[in-house]
Amino acid sequence: MLKGVIAMDKVRIGIVGIGNMGRAHARYLLDKKVANAELTAICDSDPEKLHWATQAFGDTIRCYQKYDEMISSGVIDGVLIVAPHYDHSPLAIKAFKKGLHVLTEKPAGVYTKQVREMNDAAEKCGKIFGIMYNQRTNPVYQKLRDLIKSGELGDLKRTNWILTNWYRPQSYYDSGGWRATWEGEGGGVLINQVPHQLDLWQWICGMPVKVRSFCQFGKYHNIEVEDDVTAYVEYENGATGVFVTSTGDAPGTNRLEVTGTMGKAVIENDTLTFWRNRMSERVFNEDFKGGFGFPECWKCEIPVSGDNRQHEGITENWVNAILKGSSLLAPGTEGINGLIISNAIHLSTWIDDWVHIPFDEELFLEKLMEKIKTSTFKKLKNKAVTFSVDGTH
Amino acid sequence: MLKGVIAMDKVRIGIVGIGNMGRAHARYLLDKKVANAELTAICDSDPEKLHWATQAFGDTIRCYQKYDEMISSGVIDGVLIVAPHYDHSPLAIKAFKKGLHVLTEKPAGVYTKQVREMNDAAEKCGKIFGIMYNQRTNPVYQKLRDLIKSGELGDLKRTNWILTNWYRPQSYYDSGGWRATWEGEGGGVLINQVPHQLDLWQWICGMPVKVRSFCQFGKYHNIEVEDDVTAYVEYENGATGVFVTSTGDAPGTNRLEVTGTMGKAVIENDTLTFWRNRMSERVFNEDFKGGFGFPECWKCEIPVSGDNRQHEGITENWVNAILKGSSLLAPGTEGINGLIISNAIHLSTWIDDWVHIPFDEELFLEKLMEKIKTSTFKKLKNKAVTFSVDGTH
Repeated sequence: MLKGVIAMDKVRIGIVGIGNMGRAHARYLLDKKVANAELTAICDSDPEKLHWATQAFGDTIRCYQKYDEMISSGVIDGVLIVAPHYDHSPLAIKAFKKGLHVLTEKPAGVYTKQVREMNDAAEKCGKIFGIMYNQRTNPVYQKLRDLIKSGELGDLKRTNWILTNWYRPQSYYDSGGWRATWEGEGGGVLINQVPHQLDLWQWICGMPVKVRSFCQFGKYHNIEVEDDVTAYVEYENGATGVFVTSTGDAPGTNRLEVTGTMGKAVIENDTLTFWRNRMSERVFNEDFKGGFGFPECWKCEIPVSGDNRQHEGITENWVNAILKGSSLLAPGTEGINGLIISNAIHLSTWIDDWVHIPFDEELFLEKLMEKIKTSTFKKLKNKAVTFSVDGTH
Repeated sequence: MLKGVIAMDKVRIGIVGIGNMGRAHARYLLDKKVANAELTAICDSDPEKLHWATQAFGDTIRCYQKYDEMISSGVIDGVLIVAPHYDHSPLAIKAFKKGLHVLTEKPAGVYTKQVREMNDAAEKCGKIFGIMYNQRTNPVYQKLRDLIKSGELGDLKRTNWILTNWYRPQSYYDSGGWRATWEGEGGGVLINQVPHQLDLWQWICGMPVKVRSFCQFGKYHNIEVEDDVTAYVEYENGATGVFVTSTGDAPGTNRLEVTGTMGKAVIENDTLTFWRNRMSERVFNEDFKGGFGFPECWKCEIPVSGDNRQHEGITENWVNAILKGSSLLAPGTEGINGLIISNAIHLSTWIDDWVHIPFDEELFLEKLMEKIKTSTFKKLKNKAVTFSVDGTH
């Protein structure tokens, strides 16, 4: 029998954290949108939220205020972790120790050291470990990855992602005391909004080897963490990349351009266009004697098909990995890659210098702890608010 | 009588430098594409090129091997400088001293110190001084500038120019011994191809106050200067910007995005689209209480009209300034702005650090001279080749 496959016909899931996103996960599970999955338990340390869950979901779901009780209850086969970022790793490690499968929300954690411990625990326990990189279900990104992995784009020359469509107004940040603080989240747009795209960036284009970045903190909002980021990276083969993101731009842009020796691919407005060189630019460069000229290039509209099932898709993929041993689209252990880029971007700004990957993880943690310790930011004492997350990620 | 206006009905022009671009200028002047302008003289130190010019243009045009003779000849009212970059400033200064009007090709010079001397000479002499920033005649850039100057885009937040459509194959670089050397050109794509867009960038968005850049030298070609550049800038109000250029990408991109508090404008494929916020994002940010939401935004296709007469347009505008006292679209003294950005981008890479504007011009010059002195680059000993520049800038 394959690793993680056990004789059962459905996976009983417990959700830890029943705020905005936890509720969204609970709803599609209760609506039976994911085959062979059953929501059997919910855990939240906040009694009011638990009370709300009982009212909303009925008493067939077991409610726990203590995580340890839920994972020892015997009513779940796996946990879906929708807790604050810092808690992802410790909660996952506890679950693995109880022999449970784990699907964690992004980010994998706040700092890589923590995530390495989680990955080690997953490895030792042998259970199915997934991460909610629900943008990996988007066929347009899958197709671009396919185009690169197949070699049809040639050798990588340049990547450029303008990803500024993560707009958030001040009321979003005021809605929870943990939001957008070093202590509560460990970062801003990098750690909350763009982990998906940092993951896709490396999933599609590979990991950079050095980073020089420019974060601006509390630029557009009354927060202490970054809400505006420009990062420059270089890859092992000398290719360059730019990643721009913000929660302050309205309207924003989501445009990913990847250039290789065989042409250029652009994803914008959920369509993929490939400007395909008939011959490699590198060959043309050497052979063409006319001074001014270009390789012949064909504009190709690349067909993209398949559902983009997002959260449901990732959860179902994880459930199938548990029940049928099928491969994970977003293995939990890959969560560290996007976080490495995220941490490197923070660190580069903090030290105002290059960060080479692998970077000094102790230094990052030291700097992060310093931010927490020296924080003078006073949150508005608003009551925590739960918004609908329909249409967000 | 207005400054520079003299009683004459046409401007007699002498061109210095009759290579690729010089020939293009000569042709449209001979074809009478520019009203009230007459090509009366040509100067080139290369006897073969002069011979070619006599054959091609006939003997009504005076040919000079020595620039001093041409500017003392009495047969010209103004010079069009199409010489190597380092010579722009000294040639212009000589012409001003003879009381001639000057229209210089871009770049204004190779280093700002040199250009300041040229600007001083122009100021003292009071003659009409223009620069061949022929992209300023493009109505689509004029319109974007108008949109910003009128305040309709609001306060600047972000600029992003991906300008990688300056592809050049190796044969281009092999076609002249001066090309793409520190001694011959003083730089690569920054000094030869993109001065136009560095000018437009500052003309439209204003000057940055600090620059952190990443040039790669001889990355895609057998040259010693930069052929791949990524630059990050910040403006006085904290807005950020990115400028990416290369002569190694095929096919390239030319996409300028400018974001302000009132929305976002994008120029791509020679069209201007404005995503217009109905209210300022800054006001929405404070007033909206729903957590997730955006200012109402209208996608506006901005009409752009008018001819883009490029080189002919700039020459005619300069001629009209001489004859009629009309204002210059591209005053020569503004040439220094794009060069400041260009020099700052070089310097930032050389010192691997931030460059604040105004920067240390002596340091830049010192570093440039060091590059020239320590150059070990050996050019292929090809005969100089003259290509057609139809369709290039």
